[in-house]
Amino acid sequence: MKALMKTGSEPGAELREVAVPEPGPDEVLIRVKATAICGTDIHIYSWDQYAQERIKPPMIFGHEGCGEVARIGSRVRGYAIGDLIAVETHIPCGECFQCRTGSQHICERMAIIGVHTDGVFAEYAKIPTSCCWKLPQGTNPDLGAILEPMGVAINGLLKEDINNKTVAIFGLGPIGQFGLAAAAFWGASRIFAVEPNAYRLDMARRLVPKATLLNPSERDEVKAILEATAGRGVDVSLEISGDPHGVKRAFQVVRKGGRVSLIGLPSKPIELDLTADIIYKEVRAYGSTGRLMWKTWYDTQKLLDSGAFDPTPIITHRFPLEKFDQALNLARSRQAGKILLYP
Amino acid sequence: MKALMKTGSEPGAELREVAVPEPGPDEVLIRVKATAICGTDIHIYSWDQYAQERIKPPMIFGHEGCGEVARIGSRVRGYAIGDLIAVETHIPCGECFQCRTGSQHICERMAIIGVHTDGVFAEYAKIPTSCCWKLPQGTNPDLGAILEPMGVAINGLLKEDINNKTVAIFGLGPIGQFGLAAAAFWGASRIFAVEPNAYRLDMARRLVPKATLLNPSERDEVKAILEATAGRGVDVSLEISGDPHGVKRAFQVVRKGGRVSLIGLPSKPIELDLTADIIYKEVRAYGSTGRLMWKTWYDTQKLLDSGAFDPTPIITHRFPLEKFDQALNLARSRQAGKILLYP
Amino acid sequence: MKALMKTGSEPGAELREVAVPEPGPDEVLIRVKATAICGTDIHIYSWDQYAQERIKPPMIFGHEGCGEVARIGSRVRGYAIGDLIAVETHIPCGECFQCRTGSQHICERMAIIGVHTDGVFAEYAKIPTSCCWKLPQGTNPDLGAILEPMGVAINGLLKEDINNKTVAIFGLGPIGQFGLAAAAFWGASRIFAVEPNAYRLDMARRLVPKATLLNPSERDEVKAILEATAGRGVDVSLEISGDPHGVKRAFQVVRKGGRVSLIGLPSKPIELDLTADIIYKEVRAYGSTGRLMWKTWYDTQKLLDSGAFDPTPIITHRFPLEKFDQALNLARSRQAGKILLYP
Amino acid sequence: MKALMKTGSEPGAELREVAVPEPGPDEVLIRVKATAICGTDIHIYSWDQYAQERIKPPMIFGHEGCGEVARIGSRVRGYAIGDLIAVETHIPCGECFQCRTGSQHICERMAIIGVHTDGVFAEYAKIPTSCCWKLPQGTNPDLGAILEPMGVAINGLLKEDINNKTVAIFGLGPIGQFGLAAAAFWGASRIFAVEPNAYRLDMARRLVPKATLLNPSERDEVKAILEATAGRGVDVSLEISGDPHGVKRAFQVVRKGGRVSLIGLPSKPIELDLTADIIYKEVRAYGSTGRLMWKTWYDTQKLLDSGAFDPTPIITHRFPLEKFDQALNLARSRQAGKILLYP
Repeated sequence: MKALMKTGSEPGAELREVAVPEPGPDEVLIRVKATAICGTDIHIYSWDQYAQERIKPPMIFGHEGCGEVARIGSRVRGYAIGDLIAVETHIPCGECFQCRTGSQHICERMAIIGVHTDGVFAEYAKIPTSCCWKLPQGTNPDLGAILEPMGVAINGLLKEDINNKTVAIFGLGPIGQFGLAAAAFWGASRIFAVEPNAYRLDMARRLVPKATLLNPSERDEVKAILEATAGRGVDVSLEISGDPHGVKRAFQVVRKGGRVSLIGLPSKPIELDLTADIIYKEVRAYGSTGRLMWKTWYDTQKLLDSGAFDPTPIITHRFPLEKFDQALNLARSRQAGKILLYP
Repeated sequence: MKALMKTGSEPGAELREVAVPEPGPDEVLIRVKATAICGTDIHIYSWDQYAQERIKPPMIFGHEGCGEVARIGSRVRGYAIGDLIAVETHIPCGECFQCRTGSQHICERMAIIGVHTDGVFAEYAKIPTSCCWKLPQGTNPDLGAILEPMGVAINGLLKEDINNKTVAIFGLGPIGQFGLAAAAFWGASRIFAVEPNAYRLDMARRLVPKATLLNPSERDEVKAILEATAGRGVDVSLEISGDPHGVKRAFQVVRKGGRVSLIGLPSKPIELDLTADIIYKEVRAYGSTGRLMWKTWYDTQKLLDSGAFDPTPIITHRFPLEKFDQALNLARSRQAGKILLYP
Repeated sequence: MKALMKTGSEPGAELREVAVPEPGPDEVLIRVKATAICGTDIHIYSWDQYAQERIKPPMIFGHEGCGEVARIGSRVRGYAIGDLIAVETHIPCGECFQCRTGSQHICERMAIIGVHTDGVFAEYAKIPTSCCWKLPQGTNPDLGAILEPMGVAINGLLKEDINNKTVAIFGLGPIGQFGLAAAAFWGASRIFAVEPNAYRLDMARRLVPKATLLNPSERDEVKAILEATAGRGVDVSLEISGDPHGVKRAFQVVRKGGRVSLIGLPSKPIELDLTADIIYKEVRAYGSTGRLMWKTWYDTQKLLDSGAFDPTPIITHRFPLEKFDQALNLARSRQAGKILLYP
Repeated sequence: MKALMKTGSEPGAELREVAVPEPGPDEVLIRVKATAICGTDIHIYSWDQYAQERIKPPMIFGHEGCGEVARIGSRVRGYAIGDLIAVETHIPCGECFQCRTGSQHICERMAIIGVHTDGVFAEYAKIPTSCCWKLPQGTNPDLGAILEPMGVAINGLLKEDINNKTVAIFGLGPIGQFGLAAAAFWGASRIFAVEPNAYRLDMARRLVPKATLLNPSERDEVKAILEATAGRGVDVSLEISGDPHGVKRAFQVVRKGGRVSLIGLPSKPIELDLTADIIYKEVRAYGSTGRLMWKTWYDTQKLLDSGAFDPTPIITHRFPLEKFDQALNLARSRQAGKILLYP
């Protein structure tokens, strides 16, 4: 089969012909129908520090994917050939305290598909059933491929009730776009979204016309949000940029007694004024990673099933797997929404 | 009456003879029986940046106090001459969103006794009834004077249930000592406490013998706590030092899915590794300031009433108000627990 | 002034000319602009057991009202002549544990306007400022008069997050209609509403067309709801009928792990199958009374301000105060929505 | 092997010699070291309506048990011969909404060991690994056998934080005794326990000397609890009797804003005064069944590990399996604590 591999300790990737994997006893083999590119894939492709610390080439990368069950491991129950599966990236051990108390997504011995094990940028992939989300038959595989990153946004969004609350979103990359749409769907009363990139602002404008979009290179977003909220600030900040500027602003614009969800991953430590921005305001800050297994998936499916929101416009480009260089470079450029790769 | 005043824009303070204040219609006049020195008072005395930004001399400072009702304002109901009162420092406006939804302690227009209005380092003080906590008759006024700072610790401690959880406390100044005692009282299953100051470690050892005390100048407290918790870290961190070292360690030693209460006030921004220490671990961080009005006071009173804990050993020195220089300098030296001043 | 009074220990009421009341020091006098009839008023008018146990004639009744501030008590701050006020019915003592920990609406020494003190069915009424909700200038007084019963529904609805949850509402009297509209506004994904009265079903159909209305005299509502939810039942039941049939059904149709809010007031004890309907399903049941002061009022105002929902169609009849007999008899007939009385 | 079986549709049971079962692929075979008698076993033995509706003879009953792993199914990982196991009774399907969102104990397709499948009153039993709790080596098997019913009490107790709250416990059968001990361990500030049976009161007196024990046949327990709480009632009621009298009293003695956990299983519907006892007081009522998998087991293990509480005195009788008639009749008499059977 074709597989996109990280073959050496250097930038780039390579499309290779490899054997179709054998599913283990608790795994299914899926024929991959659609995959999506995540920031992690760009790290791996670029071979930056994040990748160097985690990746052991040669390996197949990619972890956002959707496929049909093609073979079934010996111990597997409840799956049939042809079932459509979306892939959960986090492989829980199933035995630690976190796994046994409803927090498999922060398992103490977590492995990540496409990082610690072979991923989905290939014609076939073997997936543990503990990482399979069965999709309703007839689901567009493109949607199946983006449920995982949608879940990242939704997990952070729903750390507390969002409904009828004012929200500020920092960062409108693909996960930020999902967060924006999800905030609207879950009933935020007013949404501010902050992003310097014009391409992304354009996309957001079409996606949620009622949101107030702020370009921090044009105006001071803190001032704008405070003015619009009678000086109080918003009930909720969603930090999805991972950028020091965004993180600081997320805390500055939240009201006394408000909450911040930290979703974007800063690449280095960030200076925060804890006294003014967290302690005196009694702000609650939530680290948010991955998706609750499986609460977040049920929520994400609900959003899709409602018909209230069509996330496909967030998918802006589609490439065959062979054009991985073009796709990964485009993803790196920030001039795109979600980019799909088809093996 | 005698009153300890900040009279000029420079270090120091002055004991003056001034008129006994008239209680306003919603205030009671208390004859002050005991007061305690807080870090804020040291800021005011030292005339550092914190003080310069907030204090308008001449004014009487001091805000931790206990006294007997001596006169009653015209609109006041429910108070009688002789009632023993502990003072809540935060004056809520009573009309903003925070005040009307149970969060008066983070009132949008909050004033602070002894900072924005005349305080309690005086023979008499006028206190709005919205800041009065009636003590059971016969309460030792020394205890009444320290309920307010005890409440600071308890508010942060009880942001979530503490019972049967493992806890690490950073900083063993007086509020840290209260936090230590309160964590034991509220049922923490194991307590680590981190403090470099030998005097404070000694006090903690006597206060809660079962706590594991760690001096970070002697051993790596992160390593020690991780080793003692099978590498997982503690369920709860209480940051009461306000020190960058403590704040970072508080996040490093908390387990996946754990929580951190930020109580100590850093004097400047602190660099945090959000990705590793908050996001990937899905940590919840709570800013904590003042005391819930009046949930925290009920909790604090409960602790006293239980008889399970005698906080008086945390009071290490007592001075007449005249010896304020000696008392404030001792407080600044960190070679003391709680220091009381008697007008 | 004109006032509708309960003058004797027998059915009926009497319109009398009485002196305009003097506002006490913590009260404002309002010129009443609109009032609404509540079930409690029907009890008082009918002089049933509920009324006999609580009411001491002669007294003015009525408690749902809206008016303009006409005079201001001596201790009152923050109110001006002409301010438009909606009346909160529950007079909190301000000093008990409930009042001091954010639950004034279940004050240990609660009095109720129009039950324990003179009410609003009059040209003027004196209202403690602890029971005043200032309305935005220009608010329609009819809306002001129905915020209180809207709040009853909203308090029960929001005991937990409702958003994207399936909901069954039992009882579509005026509070049920408000509950229905509020459930839609707060984002319930699917709403079932159960009511035998055709008049009320008609009103509900116009108010929230997407709701599934069930007439239990035509079909088995438990069966219908279970069928529509793949046998699982709904996430949330709102019991607003107070009827034994409704209460039992509310527990029968809620799913495992779901919740029930009990809002309607049964007039006598009700038999419940706790084992099957609550314990084995681990259902959470919430008693709900009055409105959170003032969290619920903020929520209710938000609903109005959103423009998403116009509650005025729930007001079906308007009478001058003189026609009280006609109005109260109509209310008793259940062939009406909310009925307003204008003094 | 020896096995205690329900062989016919009539009262009684029979000790038979049967083949040692083969563990299925996801099961382990345990050599049973100790078992305990539960109320369910008395139902089965007595062949009452509960049993007739659920049990299909012939089958082995018993579900509270502890044993050593003797054989391991083909798909099982993480277990070794000799591991000591406590049995969780509820077999979750692993695939429904409840199972995938942290509520396996209220699985939509739950089966129960010893009710729907062969149980533990036998020399060997096969147990799905989804129902195995590994005990620390060296644990007394008697303790292992009673963790399951201890968990029933602890699940109900910890529906909300109990610490420093006043608690009333209704019913002091074995689960009530566990609840009593657990309430003390988890820091209840004051405990009332209500039970008419002198034998059980005696046991409770020794177990938690500081509890206030009330015999309702000697004094009105509602009056006694209200008097002792300044007329307010307790913060928390735990209903563990399943008796109509206890259930009603549990609601009557709880304070405004308090909560009730319903744990005991009433055998028929019970009349409740919802208006006075739940709605006007805004009480929260929680149905509680089984144990959270595995949060409650971690909590229960914590209680054991703390050394603060020795539950073995609640075990009052021990019999070899052969003496099952004597043991089951004793259990039925209510003149015993927990009764163990050894195969």
